[in-house]
Amino acid sequence: MSVIDEVTREFSRLPGVGPRTATRLVYHLLRSPSEQARDLARSISSLIDRVRACDVCGNFSESTTCDICADARRDASVICVVESAFDVRSIDRTGQFAGTFHVLGGSLSPLDGVGPEQLRIAALLERVRESDGRVREVILATNPSVEGEATAVYLEGVIRPLGPRVTRLARGIPVGSDLEFVDGSTLAEALFGRREM
Amino acid sequence: MSVIDEVTREFSRLPGVGPRTATRLVYHLLRSPSEQARDLARSISSLIDRVRACDVCGNFSESTTCDICADARRDASVICVVESAFDVRSIDRTGQFAGTFHVLGGSLSPLDGVGPEQLRIAALLERVRESDGRVREVILATNPSVEGEATAVYLEGVIRPLGPRVTRLARGIPVGSDLEFVDGSTLAEALFGRREM
Repeated sequence: MSVIDEVTREFSRLPGVGPRTATRLVYHLLRSPSEQARDLARSISSLIDRVRACDVCGNFSESTTCDICADARRDASVICVVESAFDVRSIDRTGQFAGTFHVLGGSLSPLDGVGPEQLRIAALLERVRESDGRVREVILATNPSVEGEATAVYLEGVIRPLGPRVTRLARGIPVGSDLEFVDGSTLAEALFGRREM
Repeated sequence: MSVIDEVTREFSRLPGVGPRTATRLVYHLLRSPSEQARDLARSISSLIDRVRACDVCGNFSESTTCDICADARRDASVICVVESAFDVRSIDRTGQFAGTFHVLGGSLSPLDGVGPEQLRIAALLERVRESDGRVREVILATNPSVEGEATAVYLEGVIRPLGPRVTRLARGIPVGSDLEFVDGSTLAEALFGRREM
Protein backbone atom coordinates (compact mmCIF):
# COMPACT_ATOMS: atom_id res chain seq x y z
CA MET A 1 0.00 0.00 0.00
CA SER A 2 1.39 3.43 -0.88
CA VAL A 3 1.93 5.88 1.93
CA ILE A 4 -0.74 8.15 0.40
CA ASP A 5 -3.27 5.29 0.63
CA GLU A 6 -2.10 4.56 4.14
CA VAL A 7 -2.64 8.10 5.45
CA THR A 8 -5.95 8.24 3.58
CA ARG A 9 -7.06 5.09 5.40
CA GLU A 10 -5.98 6.48 8.78
CA PHE A 11 -7.87 9.74 8.16
CA SER A 12 -10.95 7.75 7.07
CA ARG A 13 -11.10 6.15 10.50
CA LEU A 14 -11.94 9.51 12.06
CA PRO A 15 -15.64 10.20 12.65
CA GLY A 16 -17.31 12.13 9.83
CA VAL A 17 -14.35 11.67 7.49
CA GLY A 18 -15.18 9.56 4.43
CA PRO A 19 -12.63 8.30 1.88
CA ARG A 20 -13.22 11.37 -0.29
CA THR A 21 -12.62 13.88 2.49
CA ALA A 22 -9.63 11.83 3.66
CA THR A 23 -8.07 12.03 0.19
CA ARG A 24 -8.65 15.76 0.09
CA LEU A 25 -6.92 16.15 3.47
CA VAL A 26 -3.92 14.10 2.35
CA TYR A 27 -3.46 16.08 -0.86
CA HIS A 28 -3.86 19.28 1.10
CA LEU A 29 -1.02 18.25 3.42
CA LEU A 30 1.14 17.30 0.43
CA ARG A 31 0.58 20.71 -1.14
CA SER A 32 1.17 22.66 2.07
CA PRO A 33 4.54 23.52 3.62
CA SER A 34 5.82 20.31 5.22
CA GLU A 35 5.79 22.06 8.60
CA GLN A 36 2.01 21.83 8.70
CA ALA A 37 1.97 18.04 8.41
CA ARG A 38 4.87 17.75 10.86
CA ASP A 39 3.11 19.95 13.43
CA LEU A 40 -0.07 17.93 13.04
CA ALA A 41 1.75 14.60 13.45
CA ARG A 42 3.72 15.87 16.43
CA SER A 43 0.71 17.32 18.21
CA ILE A 44 -1.28 14.10 17.76
CA SER A 45 1.60 12.09 19.24
CA SER A 46 1.91 14.36 22.26
CA LEU A 47 -1.86 14.26 22.72
CA ILE A 48 -1.64 10.56 23.45
CA ASP A 49 1.57 10.85 25.45
CA ARG A 50 0.50 13.72 27.65
CA VAL A 51 -3.26 13.58 28.17
CA ARG A 52 -4.66 11.29 30.87
CA ALA A 53 -7.81 11.05 32.99
CA CYS A 54 -8.11 13.33 36.04
CA ASP A 55 -7.85 11.22 39.20
CA VAL A 56 -10.82 13.02 40.75
CA CYS A 57 -13.40 13.54 38.02
CA GLY A 58 -12.19 11.52 35.01
CA ASN A 59 -11.98 14.57 32.73
CA PHE A 60 -9.04 14.71 30.29
CA SER A 61 -6.06 16.38 31.88
CA GLU A 62 -2.33 16.86 31.47
CA SER A 63 -1.69 16.30 35.17
CA THR A 64 -3.10 14.00 37.87
CA THR A 65 -5.80 16.57 38.69
CA CYS A 66 -7.55 18.49 35.93
CA ASP A 67 -7.70 22.29 35.72
CA ILE A 68 -11.29 22.34 36.96
CA CYS A 69 -10.75 20.09 39.98
CA ALA A 70 -7.55 21.98 40.83
CA ASP A 71 -9.29 25.37 40.67
CA ALA A 72 -10.04 26.49 44.24
CA ARG A 73 -12.61 29.00 42.96
CA ARG A 74 -14.86 26.19 41.67
CA ASP A 75 -17.74 25.25 43.94
CA ALA A 76 -16.95 21.67 45.01
CA SER A 77 -20.35 21.35 46.69
CA VAL A 78 -22.00 20.83 43.29
CA ILE A 79 -21.05 17.93 41.02
CA CYS A 80 -22.34 17.82 37.46
CA VAL A 81 -22.34 14.21 36.21
CA VAL A 82 -21.79 13.76 32.46
CA GLU A 83 -21.24 10.82 30.14
CA SER A 84 -18.07 12.05 28.45
CA ALA A 85 -15.24 14.55 28.80
CA PHE A 86 -16.59 16.27 25.71
CA ASP A 87 -19.72 17.15 27.71
CA VAL A 88 -17.53 18.74 30.40
CA ARG A 89 -16.16 21.02 27.73
CA SER A 90 -19.61 21.89 26.36
CA ILE A 91 -21.05 22.76 29.76
CA ASP A 92 -17.95 24.58 30.94
CA ARG A 93 -17.92 26.77 27.86
CA THR A 94 -21.37 28.13 28.68
CA GLY A 95 -19.65 30.00 31.54
CA GLN A 96 -22.82 29.40 33.57
CA PHE A 97 -21.59 26.59 35.80
CA ALA A 98 -19.10 27.18 38.59
CA GLY A 99 -19.23 23.70 40.16
CA THR A 100 -17.21 20.57 39.44
CA PHE A 101 -17.75 17.61 37.14
CA HIS A 102 -17.74 13.85 37.16
CA VAL A 103 -17.24 11.90 33.94
CA LEU A 104 -18.95 8.50 33.86
CA GLY A 105 -17.26 7.29 30.69
CA GLY A 106 -20.53 6.27 29.04
CA SER A 107 -24.07 5.34 30.01
CA LEU A 108 -25.71 2.17 31.31
CA SER A 109 -26.42 -0.21 28.45
CA PRO A 110 -26.91 -3.80 29.66
CA LEU A 111 -27.26 -5.14 26.11
CA ASP A 112 -23.77 -3.81 25.32
CA GLY A 113 -22.40 -5.21 28.57
CA VAL A 114 -22.16 -1.79 30.21
CA GLY A 115 -23.32 -2.07 33.83
CA PRO A 116 -22.61 0.22 36.80
CA GLU A 117 -19.17 -1.39 37.24
CA GLN A 118 -18.10 -0.35 33.76
CA LEU A 119 -18.76 3.32 34.54
CA ARG A 120 -17.02 5.59 37.04
CA ILE A 121 -19.99 5.33 39.43
CA ALA A 122 -18.18 3.89 42.47
CA ALA A 123 -15.73 6.82 42.27
CA LEU A 124 -18.66 9.25 42.19
CA LEU A 125 -20.30 7.70 45.26
CA GLU A 126 -16.98 7.79 47.07
CA ARG A 127 -16.57 11.49 46.22
CA VAL A 128 -19.99 12.20 47.71
CA ARG A 129 -19.44 10.00 50.76
CA GLU A 130 -15.93 11.31 51.50
CA SER A 131 -17.11 14.91 51.26
CA ASP A 132 -18.88 14.40 54.59
CA GLY A 133 -21.98 16.31 53.53
CA ARG A 134 -20.08 19.05 51.70
CA VAL A 135 -21.48 17.88 48.35
CA ARG A 136 -24.93 19.46 48.45
CA GLU A 137 -26.11 18.79 44.92
CA VAL A 138 -25.48 16.31 42.14
CA ILE A 139 -26.73 17.44 38.72
CA LEU A 140 -27.40 14.53 36.37
CA ALA A 141 -26.43 15.77 32.91
CA THR A 142 -26.46 12.46 31.06
CA ASN A 143 -27.87 12.53 27.52
CA PRO A 144 -31.63 12.69 26.92
CA SER A 145 -31.43 9.20 25.32
CA VAL A 146 -32.88 5.93 26.61
CA GLU A 147 -29.50 4.94 28.06
CA GLY A 148 -28.86 8.40 29.47
CA GLU A 149 -32.26 8.42 31.18
CA ALA A 150 -31.77 4.93 32.60
CA THR A 151 -28.37 6.00 33.92
CA ALA A 152 -29.92 9.09 35.56
CA VAL A 153 -32.64 7.00 37.21
CA TYR A 154 -30.06 4.53 38.50
CA LEU A 155 -27.79 7.29 39.81
CA GLU A 156 -30.65 9.03 41.57
CA GLY A 157 -31.40 5.79 43.40
CA VAL A 158 -27.87 5.39 44.72
CA ILE A 159 -26.99 9.08 45.37
CA ARG A 160 -30.12 10.37 47.11
CA PRO A 161 -29.65 8.06 50.17
CA LEU A 162 -26.21 9.66 50.66
CA GLY A 163 -27.81 13.05 51.32
CA PRO A 164 -27.27 15.48 48.38
CA ARG A 165 -30.00 17.01 46.30
CA VAL A 166 -30.21 15.18 42.97
CA THR A 167 -31.29 17.25 39.94
CA ARG A 168 -31.57 16.70 36.20
CA LEU A 169 -30.97 19.16 33.33
CA ALA A 170 -34.20 20.78 32.16
CA ARG A 171 -35.86 19.44 29.03
CA GLY A 172 -37.68 21.77 26.69
CA ILE A 173 -37.55 23.69 23.48
CA PRO A 174 -34.01 24.49 22.33
CA VAL A 175 -33.19 28.20 22.13
CA GLY A 176 -33.57 29.54 18.60
CA SER A 177 -35.64 26.64 17.31
CA ASP A 178 -39.08 26.86 15.78
CA LEU A 179 -42.11 25.18 17.40
CA GLU A 180 -42.98 23.79 13.98
CA PHE A 181 -39.85 21.64 13.98
CA VAL A 182 -39.84 20.51 17.61
CA ASP A 183 -40.80 16.84 18.04
CA GLY A 184 -43.85 15.85 20.08
CA SER A 185 -42.09 14.42 23.11
CA THR A 186 -39.90 17.52 23.49
CA LEU A 187 -43.02 19.67 23.24
CA ALA A 188 -44.73 17.53 25.87
CA GLU A 189 -41.69 17.93 28.16
CA ALA A 190 -41.72 21.68 27.55
CA LEU A 191 -45.40 21.85 28.56
CA PHE A 192 -44.81 19.69 31.60
CA GLY A 193 -41.86 21.82 32.74
CA ARG A 194 -43.48 25.21 32.00
CA ARG A 195 -42.52 28.10 34.25
CA GLU A 196 -44.17 31.32 35.48
CA MET A 197 -43.09 34.34 33.48
CA MET B 1 -1.84 26.29 25.43
CA SER B 2 -2.97 22.81 26.47
CA VAL B 3 -2.07 19.95 24.15
CA ILE B 4 -5.78 19.41 23.47
CA ASP B 5 -6.08 23.02 22.26
CA GLU B 6 -2.89 22.58 20.25
CA VAL B 7 -4.10 19.50 18.35
CA THR B 8 -7.49 21.15 17.87
CA ARG B 9 -5.75 24.14 16.28
CA GLU B 10 -3.68 21.89 14.00
CA PHE B 11 -6.78 19.96 12.87
CA SER B 12 -8.61 23.27 12.26
CA ARG B 13 -5.98 24.21 9.70
CA LEU B 14 -7.16 21.38 7.44
CA PRO B 15 -9.64 22.33 4.71
CA GLY B 16 -13.28 21.83 5.68
CA VAL B 17 -12.42 21.26 9.34
CA GLY B 18 -13.83 23.98 11.61
CA PRO B 19 -13.03 24.35 15.32
CA ARG B 20 -16.08 22.27 16.24
CA THR B 21 -15.17 19.35 13.99
CA ALA B 22 -11.55 19.62 15.12
CA THR B 23 -12.61 19.31 18.76
CA ARG B 24 -14.73 16.29 17.94
CA LEU B 25 -11.78 14.63 16.19
CA VAL B 26 -9.47 15.28 19.14
CA TYR B 27 -11.92 13.85 21.66
CA HIS B 28 -12.48 10.89 19.38
CA LEU B 29 -8.73 10.17 19.36
CA LEU B 30 -8.60 10.51 23.15
CA ARG B 31 -11.42 8.01 23.56
CA SER B 32 -10.02 5.52 21.03
CA PRO B 33 -7.23 3.00 21.64
CA SER B 34 -3.98 4.99 21.59
CA GLU B 35 -2.81 2.93 18.60
CA GLN B 36 -5.22 4.81 16.34
CA ALA B 37 -3.69 8.20 17.13
CA ARG B 38 -0.18 6.79 16.93
CA ASP B 39 -0.86 5.22 13.51
CA LEU B 40 -2.33 8.49 12.27
CA ALA B 41 0.64 10.54 13.54
CA ARG B 42 3.17 8.08 12.13
CA SER B 43 1.52 7.87 8.71
CA ILE B 44 1.34 11.68 8.42
CA SER B 45 5.05 11.91 9.24
CA SER B 46 6.03 9.32 6.65
CA LEU B 47 3.79 11.02 4.11
CA ILE B 48 6.02 14.08 4.25
CA ASP B 49 9.22 12.07 4.48
CA ARG B 50 8.51 9.72 1.62
CA VAL B 51 6.33 11.47 -0.94
CA ARG B 52 7.99 13.72 -3.53
CA ALA B 53 7.21 15.06 -6.99
CA CYS B 54 7.77 12.77 -10.00
CA ASP B 55 10.75 14.05 -12.02
CA VAL B 56 8.82 13.61 -15.26
CA CYS B 57 5.24 14.72 -14.66
CA GLY B 58 5.22 16.35 -11.22
CA ASN B 59 2.66 13.89 -9.79
CA PHE B 60 3.15 12.78 -6.17
CA SER B 61 5.37 9.73 -6.01
CA GLU B 62 7.42 7.69 -3.58
CA SER B 63 10.28 7.37 -6.08
CA THR B 64 11.95 9.65 -8.65
CA THR B 65 9.45 8.50 -11.30
CA CYS B 66 5.78 8.01 -10.45
CA ASP B 67 3.87 4.75 -11.02
CA ILE B 68 2.15 6.17 -14.09
CA CYS B 69 5.28 7.48 -15.82
CA ALA B 70 7.11 4.23 -14.98
CA ASP B 71 4.32 2.07 -16.42
CA ALA B 72 5.40 0.92 -19.91
CA ARG B 73 1.78 0.09 -20.81
CA ARG B 74 0.77 3.75 -20.58
CA ASP B 75 0.54 5.58 -23.88
CA ALA B 76 3.30 8.20 -23.71
CA SER B 77 2.09 9.80 -26.94
CA VAL B 78 -0.79 11.48 -25.07
CA ILE B 79 -0.16 13.91 -22.21
CA CYS B 80 -3.06 15.10 -20.08
CA VAL B 81 -2.20 18.44 -18.47
CA VAL B 82 -3.78 19.11 -15.08
CA GLU B 83 -3.46 21.78 -12.41
CA SER B 84 -2.87 19.49 -9.44
CA ALA B 85 -1.85 15.96 -8.53
CA PHE B 86 -5.31 15.49 -7.12
CA ASP B 87 -6.68 15.87 -10.65
CA VAL B 88 -4.32 13.09 -11.83
CA ARG B 89 -5.97 10.84 -9.31
CA SER B 90 -9.50 11.84 -10.32
CA ILE B 91 -8.89 11.25 -14.03
CA ASP B 92 -6.90 8.07 -13.49
CA ARG B 93 -9.66 6.57 -11.39
CA THR B 94 -12.11 6.82 -14.28
CA GLY B 95 -10.11 3.99 -15.89
CA GLN B 96 -10.81 5.68 -19.23
CA PHE B 97 -7.42 7.28 -19.80
CA ALA B 98 -4.36 5.22 -20.72
CA GLY B 99 -1.98 8.12 -21.45
CA THR B 100 0.36 10.07 -19.20
CA PHE B 101 -0.04 13.25 -17.16
CA HIS B 102 1.66 16.55 -16.53
CA VAL B 103 0.98 18.48 -13.32
CA LEU B 104 1.29 22.27 -13.67
CA GLY B 105 1.12 22.99 -9.96
CA GLY B 106 -1.61 25.61 -10.33
CA SER B 107 -3.04 27.91 -12.99
CA LEU B 108 -1.97 31.26 -14.41
CA SER B 109 -3.07 34.07 -12.13
CA PRO B 110 -1.11 37.27 -12.76
CA LEU B 111 -2.82 39.10 -9.90
CA ASP B 112 -1.49 36.46 -7.49
CA GLY B 113 1.94 36.61 -9.07
CA VAL B 114 1.56 33.25 -10.83
CA GLY B 115 3.01 33.53 -14.34
CA PRO B 116 4.22 30.78 -16.71
CA GLU B 117 7.54 30.56 -14.80
CA GLN B 118 5.76 29.65 -11.58
CA LEU B 119 4.09 26.63 -13.20
CA ARG B 120 5.76 23.49 -14.60
CA ILE B 121 5.23 24.72 -18.18
CA ALA B 122 8.88 24.73 -19.32
CA ALA B 123 9.15 21.08 -18.27
CA LEU B 124 6.02 20.29 -20.29
CA LEU B 125 7.37 21.97 -23.43
CA GLU B 126 10.64 20.12 -22.98
CA ARG B 127 8.80 16.80 -22.71
CA VAL B 128 7.00 17.54 -25.97
CA ARG B 129 10.14 18.79 -27.71
CA GLU B 130 12.38 15.96 -26.53
CA SER B 131 9.83 13.34 -27.63
CA ASP B 132 10.78 14.15 -31.23
CA GLY B 133 7.21 14.01 -32.48
CA ARG B 134 6.21 10.99 -30.40
CA VAL B 135 3.84 13.14 -28.31
CA ARG B 136 0.85 13.32 -30.66
CA GLU B 137 -1.72 14.91 -28.39
CA VAL B 138 -1.80 17.21 -25.38
CA ILE B 139 -5.15 17.26 -23.55
CA LEU B 140 -5.68 20.45 -21.56
CA ALA B 141 -7.59 19.41 -18.44
CA THR B 142 -7.21 22.59 -16.41
CA ASN B 143 -10.26 23.66 -14.39
CA PRO B 144 -13.23 25.32 -16.08
CA SER B 145 -12.49 28.50 -14.11
CA VAL B 146 -11.28 31.87 -15.43
CA GLU B 147 -7.68 30.99 -14.47
CA GLY B 148 -7.96 27.46 -15.84
CA GLU B 149 -9.30 28.76 -19.16
CA ALA B 150 -6.58 31.39 -19.41
CA THR B 151 -3.97 28.73 -18.71
CA ALA B 152 -5.44 26.48 -21.42
CA VAL B 153 -5.40 29.33 -23.96
CA TYR B 154 -1.80 30.16 -23.09
CA LEU B 155 -0.72 26.51 -23.32
CA GLU B 156 -2.41 26.04 -26.65
CA GLY B 157 -0.41 28.97 -28.01
CA VAL B 158 2.94 27.52 -26.96
CA ILE B 159 2.27 23.81 -27.61
CA ARG B 160 0.60 23.85 -31.01
CA PRO B 161 3.72 25.23 -32.80
CA LEU B 162 5.62 22.20 -31.51
CA GLY B 163 3.40 19.85 -33.49
CA PRO B 164 0.98 17.88 -31.28
CA ARG B 165 -2.78 18.08 -31.41
CA VAL B 166 -4.05 20.24 -28.55
CA THR B 167 -7.46 19.33 -27.11
CA ARG B 168 -9.60 20.48 -24.18
CA LEU B 169 -11.94 18.45 -21.94
CA ALA B 170 -15.57 18.64 -23.13
CA ARG B 171 -17.92 20.98 -21.30
CA GLY B 172 -21.56 20.08 -20.85
CA ILE B 173 -24.19 18.77 -18.52
CA PRO B 174 -22.77 16.61 -15.72
CA VAL B 175 -23.97 13.00 -15.74
CA GLY B 176 -26.86 12.44 -13.33
CA SER B 177 -27.74 16.10 -12.97
CA ASP B 178 -31.07 17.67 -13.71
CA LEU B 179 -31.48 20.32 -16.43
CA GLU B 180 -33.44 22.38 -13.94
CA PHE B 181 -30.35 22.83 -11.79
CA VAL B 182 -27.75 23.35 -14.51
CA ASP B 183 -26.52 26.96 -14.77
CA GLY B 184 -27.01 28.94 -17.95
CA SER B 185 -23.42 29.01 -19.17
CA THR B 186 -23.04 25.23 -18.78
CA LEU B 187 -26.29 24.80 -20.70
CA ALA B 188 -24.98 27.12 -23.41
CA GLU B 189 -21.75 25.08 -23.63
CA ALA B 190 -23.77 21.87 -23.82
CA LEU B 191 -25.80 23.27 -26.72
CA PHE B 192 -22.69 24.51 -28.47
CA GLY B 193 -20.95 21.14 -28.09
CA ARG B 194 -23.99 19.01 -28.97
CA ARG B 195 -23.28 15.73 -30.75
CA GLU B 196 -25.10 13.47 -33.23
CA MET B 197 -26.84 10.55 -31.49
